[in-house]
Amino acid sequence: MQKVCVLGGGGFIGTNLLVRLREQGADVRGFGHPPAFPDAVWGIPWTGGEFSDTDALWRCVEGCEVVYHLMGGSIPGKADADKVGDLRRSVENTVKMLEAARGGGIGKIVFVSSGGTVYGITDRLPIQESTPTDPITAYGVSRLAIEKYLNLYRHQYGIQHTILRVSNPFGEFQTARQGQGLIATLLICAFTGRSFEMWGDGTTVRDYIYVGDVVDALLAAGRHGLSERVFNVGSGVGMDVNEVIRLVETVVGRPITRICRPPRPVDVPASVLDVSRAGALLGWRPTSAMSDALERTAHWMEKFLSQAMLLDR
Amino acid sequence: MQKVCVLGGGGFIGTNLLVRLREQGADVRGFGHPPAFPDAVWGIPWTGGEFSDTDALWRCVEGCEVVYHLMGGSIPGKADADKVGDLRRSVENTVKMLEAARGGGIGKIVFVSSGGTVYGITDRLPIQESTPTDPITAYGVSRLAIEKYLNLYRHQYGIQHTILRVSNPFGEFQTARQGQGLIATLLICAFTGRSFEMWGDGTTVRDYIYVGDVVDALLAAGRHGLSERVFNVGSGVGMDVNEVIRLVETVVGRPITRICRPPRPVDVPASVLDVSRAGALLGWRPTSAMSDALERTAHWMEKFLSQAMLLDR
Repeated sequence: MQKVCVLGGGGFIGTNLLVRLREQGADVRGFGHPPAFPDAVWGIPWTGGEFSDTDALWRCVEGCEVVYHLMGGSIPGKADADKVGDLRRSVENTVKMLEAARGGGIGKIVFVSSGGTVYGITDRLPIQESTPTDPITAYGVSRLAIEKYLNLYRHQYGIQHTILRVSNPFGEFQTARQGQGLIATLLICAFTGRSFEMWGDGTTVRDYIYVGDVVDALLAAGRHGLSERVFNVGSGVGMDVNEVIRLVETVVGRPITRICRPPRPVDVPASVLDVSRAGALLGWRPTSAMSDALERTAHWMEKFLSQAMLLDR
Repeated sequence: MQKVCVLGGGGFIGTNLLVRLREQGADVRGFGHPPAFPDAVWGIPWTGGEFSDTDALWRCVEGCEVVYHLMGGSIPGKADADKVGDLRRSVENTVKMLEAARGGGIGKIVFVSSGGTVYGITDRLPIQESTPTDPITAYGVSRLAIEKYLNLYRHQYGIQHTILRVSNPFGEFQTARQGQGLIATLLICAFTGRSFEMWGDGTTVRDYIYVGDVVDALLAAGRHGLSERVFNVGSGVGMDVNEVIRLVETVVGRPITRICRPPRPVDVPASVLDVSRAGALLGWRPTSAMSDALERTAHWMEKFLSQAMLLDR
């Protein structure tokens, strides 16, 4: 039975990963801030702790074959507002963890990097892993710095890792808190009648991927032992905001009111990932159809919102 | 008259740069740890301070047309021994400075990055600026992270910068303190009869550049306003350690005793820079012949050592 740990397992991707690992019978544990959906991860051993608490973290990961590193990955918007704090929270704490791992004790680290931000503004789409990385957001810079430190510790201390540069994930357990997740935000607008605040004219193109496919890629990366260590994980398909709005309106069956704001300098105009390397070497491909995935997500969101409203009463 | 500031101006490259800027009549000031050679920079306004003291630093750089950033650049060996400390000292302090510069107040930043470490192990020589950057030393990772933050602040706040990825510089004011500088170390061995501790078999290839040429490149970068922002600065010529030893023996006229140690994992096997981009866009080329530059350096070192010995008595 594989012993694994999910750092930052209480968030959107982490919750989905924990649920699947438990289904597969893995010996799994979680570390980080309290789970956003405790019922979903009920029965999974959990250590509440800050990423900066290296001792507590190390007690949790020591002896694990796979350590999924999802810490500091949920709040891209906050990183730009406090770049020094972001650097400390994400990069410095990762280096502290790697220092603890120098003497051995973990099999490998699978790190969730950001396919939507590490490349910055690119000339050509879809984006391959070999494309230059010049992020225009603090979140992208700190994700990239973590990638470089992982490579360094592999070289100097033999700590193995795989990096997944995930595009824009959506699906169950994404709640649009702190403004993250276009699809979650749109679903909430459609279900509640709230207006949707749009940055720019809706022509920003992104690569949306269903979280179930992301979890497939994480599991494949956990098993993977090839020399290639960086993989794009996305649908490989670009959609602009206006298209996504139309799709959500169709699935929910209600119109969404838009409020148009000026574009933000931290948004790259277009990001679509070339996922052929993951196909060839990880044996992974996105398999979920957009319409099916959106329906599943809408179904979950409807239930979530009705429960949240019950609680509010 | 150009108003400029040299951060970290008390070190090897910084001292050479300050001397030249004064010769050119620039309105120049320095900031950082006390100058290693106070006589050389006599009369240049100096603010002693830690890089972490953003307020003192900002008082020094505000209103400068060019800020040369040479902080944290002198001790590559120490970075690997304390990776968290290096990250704080070099990257975090740079981000704090950039935060202070958000509202304007400086013309541009010229950053001395590391052509010998940011690329890591490369397939092909000479190395072009577009080569992937996968450093195998903490020093290389933190230099690269600073490059990425500079790019970010340019994008988000319009703070201009030019990055020079300098290879292995040698010349006047390099004292081999903390083990840095092969040529300085060899000169000291040749003049004093000390044995030379060599890591590996002497086949490690590096690109050695005379510091006078580096200063030329820094001045060109200070004037430069093109859209290209990253430039290799080296001789473009590779020499292995054994060749350099023979050259130093010839110049000084005395043999050097070698003690051979096992190779270190932090040393890339070969690094030679392609400097054609700087030639085409900065109008800069290395002009010093190796033999002349070595003789000037040997002359300086002989004088420096005799003065140091006088002081020791």
